[in-house]
Amino acid sequence: MNYAEESLKRHYEWRGKIEMISRAGIDTREDLALAYTPGVAEACLAIANDINKSYELTRRWNTVAVVTDGTAVLGLGDIGPEAAMPVMEGKAVLFKELAGVDAIPLCIRSKNVDEIINTICLLAGSFGGVNLEDISAPRCFEIERKLKDICDIPIFHDDQHGTAIVALASVINALKVVGKSIDVSIVINGAGAAGTATAQLLNDYGIDDIVLCDREGALCTGESLAETMKGADIFIGLSGPNCVTTEMVASMNKKAIVLAMANPIPEIMPDAAKAGGAAVVGTGRSDFPNQVNNVLAFPGVFRGVLDAMANDITKQMKIAAAKAIAEYIEPSADCILPSPLDKGVVSAVAKGVMKAYGN
Amino acid sequence: MNYAEESLKRHYEWRGKIEMISRAGIDTREDLALAYTPGVAEACLAIANDINKSYELTRRWNTVAVVTDGTAVLGLGDIGPEAAMPVMEGKAVLFKELAGVDAIPLCIRSKNVDEIINTICLLAGSFGGVNLEDISAPRCFEIERKLKDICDIPIFHDDQHGTAIVALASVINALKVVGKSIDVSIVINGAGAAGTATAQLLNDYGIDDIVLCDREGALCTGESLAETMKGADIFIGLSGPNCVTTEMVASMNKKAIVLAMANPIPEIMPDAAKAGGAAVVGTGRSDFPNQVNNVLAFPGVFRGVLDAMANDITKQMKIAAAKAIAEYIEPSADCILPSPLDKGVVSAVAKGVMKAYGN
Repeated sequence: MNYAEESLKRHYEWRGKIEMISRAGIDTREDLALAYTPGVAEACLAIANDINKSYELTRRWNTVAVVTDGTAVLGLGDIGPEAAMPVMEGKAVLFKELAGVDAIPLCIRSKNVDEIINTICLLAGSFGGVNLEDISAPRCFEIERKLKDICDIPIFHDDQHGTAIVALASVINALKVVGKSIDVSIVINGAGAAGTATAQLLNDYGIDDIVLCDREGALCTGESLAETMKGADIFIGLSGPNCVTTEMVASMNKKAIVLAMANPIPEIMPDAAKAGGAAVVGTGRSDFPNQVNNVLAFPGVFRGVLDAMANDITKQMKIAAAKAIAEYIEPSADCILPSPLDKGVVSAVAKGVMKAYGN
Repeated sequence: MNYAEESLKRHYEWRGKIEMISRAGIDTREDLALAYTPGVAEACLAIANDINKSYELTRRWNTVAVVTDGTAVLGLGDIGPEAAMPVMEGKAVLFKELAGVDAIPLCIRSKNVDEIINTICLLAGSFGGVNLEDISAPRCFEIERKLKDICDIPIFHDDQHGTAIVALASVINALKVVGKSIDVSIVINGAGAAGTATAQLLNDYGIDDIVLCDREGALCTGESLAETMKGADIFIGLSGPNCVTTEMVASMNKKAIVLAMANPIPEIMPDAAKAGGAAVVGTGRSDFPNQVNNVLAFPGVFRGVLDAMANDITKQMKIAAAKAIAEYIEPSADCILPSPLDKGVVSAVAKGVMKAYGN
């Protein structure tokens, strides 16, 4: 199937992939008086007296804002807020279909960090959480950090933490497959939003030997990517197409794990990685085994966060999400992750996140 | 029925009167690839190339933001953004049930005029229009005026213009009932958002003899309300309870029209107004005949505005809406307005608004 052509056709048919519906029928004047004035005043007063009642008397308990400025959309880059909306609506579809979450897509017409922070902050009373999306690095770090400081609702930049959670889940299960402990060395190529957050979460999980590389090489030592990969146990690519060769994989430690997640063209194609001796290979693509896709994380994370009425998403919660994904299946070389369409994963992740919030 | 108690009970049962649903099923990996990545990129690129495509490829064509700062909610006053949400959700219910419009309620945590304007402006690319709601006067005037200047989508402060439209429709039909032309004198009590906008729209419609009063009396001459009402043809109350007496109505011209719209307690009760000789009496309440309720206006106005892809709501469009409401029925003294639950009114108003936008 030509996905591009068929998808555009479907988008014209859908005329919007989401829709706001009413849960209160308005057939009689009495219905009007109960859902609207004068009856509604009572629910307003209850919240005015106790602001936490907004989680019981309005849809806040189940509602997440999906927010972007349109600066780093898919692989398309800075295409602007309106053009980012099809992705945000797609995200809202996944939130609803997989986790029952009501997601409101909001595209902000600003690239100014403080303006974006302020806009989200001023709207925080309308939502139970905020999923940031497709905001370019390094702006996304400052935006998320400041929002986490200021806001009283949980903030989650999916490009960072969604990816990090699924990468950690992949590493956990790939290590099981090759029979190694967490005492391994990891090379991450790509020091953007996803690479940085993945390095951090792997480290939080207890893996100390991690080298993060960007286009110029290893961030600490300046070694080339090829040098850095020699003897490494795991390569994680969150960079760009075709920057890894079969020879580079062959230079890694035995039973190497290669997660080449650049989209749509990976750092190295699975065949080439296997030719270099890799024992487990994953990509970001759905047409190869082991798709490392953050659809596995964000629905369950927010389901758990909302159900726990959590006001933050901690590293413990992210690790719990990764463990829940990993433990959901008995992994094999060609199946280190569950299907993103399996709703059981969502429940398992939500349960893990809720439990970790308490601790 | 005890509306307060029953409504609160229903609100706990509803746990939110609105819900975001998905219009795209996600059952297979193919569904995922069409509604989300990689297929969605094509819709993004189409909008990046022509921003107007956002009205064809996303839900923007049918989506209105319902925005408040929670400073003038119903008769409750400044109860804060979270406590205003039940009203905003109620409004979203009416938008959907009556006009098929997707409405997104947003409550802003700020009372600063510029901050509110900026927040709405930055989100304008996500919506086809903005319905402002329950923002205190005089701040609401500046917020609406500046937004109309800056934004490329239609802005409508319902407390002003929704009320004005239905008041004008009431006047048109009440004049038919009493057999008077528009060459009449009108006293409006209450110089807040609704009173000011109603005076303006009646004047735009062609009625010149209008006196606007506040608590201190007539704004121009300083005469007391009782003085001003002497010999007047129409009294419109958008103020507070019990400020008009039977004697004051008796001092009006023959075949007087009294629209006492203060909620929940009118400026004068219908019985008392009739005892003073009023020929037509309306209130804001559903338990008396002639409920002057802006539910008659905003659903049809936005249906028309969205269908016309209008970028503004002009005075011609507001007058067209009022005429459409008035012309929808053959009026009598006890029935000057159609039922707000009659969906035919919505279509008629939408048609009128669309036609007026073209001219």
